[in-house]
Amino acid sequence: MPSAEDFACAEQPVGSPGPGEVLLRNLYLSIDPAIRGWMSDAKSYLPPIRIGEPIRSGTLSQIVASDAEGWPEGLIVQALAAWESYSVVPTHNLHGKVRPIAGIPLHAMLSVLGGTGLTAYFGLLEVGNPRAAETVVVSAAAGGVGSIVGQIAKIESCQTVGLTGSDEKCAWLVEELGYDLAINYKTANLRAALAKSCPRGIDVFFDSVGGEILNTALTRLAHHGRVVLCGAISQINAPELPPGPSNYLQLLAKSARMQGFTTLDFANRYDEARERLAGWIIEGKLRYRDDIVEGLDRAPEHLLRLFSGEHRGKLMVKLAEAEV
Amino acid sequence: MPSAEDFACAEQPVGSPGPGEVLLRNLYLSIDPAIRGWMSDAKSYLPPIRIGEPIRSGTLSQIVASDAEGWPEGLIVQALAAWESYSVVPTHNLHGKVRPIAGIPLHAMLSVLGGTGLTAYFGLLEVGNPRAAETVVVSAAAGGVGSIVGQIAKIESCQTVGLTGSDEKCAWLVEELGYDLAINYKTANLRAALAKSCPRGIDVFFDSVGGEILNTALTRLAHHGRVVLCGAISQINAPELPPGPSNYLQLLAKSARMQGFTTLDFANRYDEARERLAGWIIEGKLRYRDDIVEGLDRAPEHLLRLFSGEHRGKLMVKLAEAEV
Repeated sequence: MPSAEDFACAEQPVGSPGPGEVLLRNLYLSIDPAIRGWMSDAKSYLPPIRIGEPIRSGTLSQIVASDAEGWPEGLIVQALAAWESYSVVPTHNLHGKVRPIAGIPLHAMLSVLGGTGLTAYFGLLEVGNPRAAETVVVSAAAGGVGSIVGQIAKIESCQTVGLTGSDEKCAWLVEELGYDLAINYKTANLRAALAKSCPRGIDVFFDSVGGEILNTALTRLAHHGRVVLCGAISQINAPELPPGPSNYLQLLAKSARMQGFTTLDFANRYDEARERLAGWIIEGKLRYRDDIVEGLDRAPEHLLRLFSGEHRGKLMVKLAEAEV
Repeated sequence: MPSAEDFACAEQPVGSPGPGEVLLRNLYLSIDPAIRGWMSDAKSYLPPIRIGEPIRSGTLSQIVASDAEGWPEGLIVQALAAWESYSVVPTHNLHGKVRPIAGIPLHAMLSVLGGTGLTAYFGLLEVGNPRAAETVVVSAAAGGVGSIVGQIAKIESCQTVGLTGSDEKCAWLVEELGYDLAINYKTANLRAALAKSCPRGIDVFFDSVGGEILNTALTRLAHHGRVVLCGAISQINAPELPPGPSNYLQLLAKSARMQGFTTLDFANRYDEARERLAGWIIEGKLRYRDDIVEGLDRAPEHLLRLFSGEHRGKLMVKLAEAEV
């Protein structure tokens, strides 16, 4: 588990963009479990953050200087940048130009219309591939991704069950987000509760938690069930690799699959996803909650809140206002 | 691990088929890892064999009495029956009528043209979905299923690597079955050997072994790799559920999937698969080896050989000749 002492603030001159690069003024930082993964030396889809380097982060940023055609100054972009006031990045780190939408605040471009929403959208619809009337179970259901997954599943006419760690969050899932059922995994017998709430088995298990929650859910998979691997927040701070899910052979017994993904796999479809997500927000079918603190110095504490399980919705840090 | 003392022979009157049933004279018993799974109380796609019941088994059988339209006396069928001289089964336990093929012995209908070949065919082509020039790694590569998987992968123009437990079987894989490379997992450093033999990673890992072999292969998956779960012979006799693959999050890092299946999922396509398999045999592209002992009383010892890792190809027990 990282602690506040593992982080330090440093001042450096603002860089200048070279050919094919832009200088960004970062407006919001996205606080995601992926950051903790990048802090590890384990091999992943991106290289580890090295000691002394700024923390890699999804951001909502404004281009303030550009040496890249098609990326003019003033443009607001989603980017893979860092916990910095200003970042120089190559254009392949820019994940789309942000067009503000009437009635939707800018920071939503980093949550429900950003990586969080895209993760929920592609993970559920493309990897989980739910069909109407199927049962979709979501772990970390009150988190940034999970709170959106359940609502998309409902839009797709699925039966939805959310797993979360307090009765208060259970109530929020059902009353505000429209989950059909919610289970407090800290107080319930999860196996029995899943058996009761998913009498025909779990068709799609959208998992961001791993560990015993995943292992228990595997025992309740339906025939041809699909486990969407989005993360393993329960294991992300483990000093050694924890045991894998001993029930993995349920995948064989149920002709089921377990599949990982990143939104980068669907990079050519971000616009389509954002358009549909924005449409659902405007129609009132999709709610979201952004948990925002202000100031670069507060980024470490906000990251640590991700692991405490007390937050609801998407965590982000506000650094600056966009300039018009 | 079962022992010979766990089995007993018993005589009972031969039954008569009721409506929708047939009486089979069993010609060959198929000795498969699935039998060991059915002996366990763990929930699976078929109920456990109860103590005192005959051992459920794939068979090649001849109908000797019938009360089912379309299933006349004399017909030779693949069936899900039991370790019995005669079995009464409902027609839904009959998996296709066997049409002998010139130049292919009848018992091949239980191996390369039976469940073993169908498992290799659908598991590799439909679940693994290999594309030309991809790298396909097969565990238990000298076993009944594995020996066929590698050859189909080669027919599909893949690079093939077989894992097996002796240098002699390695030589057989390469020289007789046409595997590009073989690794003796008992003497090699498997991780290093996979890194060397699969420089672009493993696109398809066809796994019948589980345990450390699966866990190591996960670390070498290519982006969008596919793990085909066919079984876990290394765990099948474990008294308690062994830990799962601790590297399962490699599925996330590689946007990869792990998927189980049974041939029953493809029951409406058995004829297509048999036709293609038979075509490859006749063209000389597909070799197979059946390891046959005679006599119902030898079935237990033959089943135990499945776990010793010393056999090559498909194990079966011959009970009787077909009558013409």
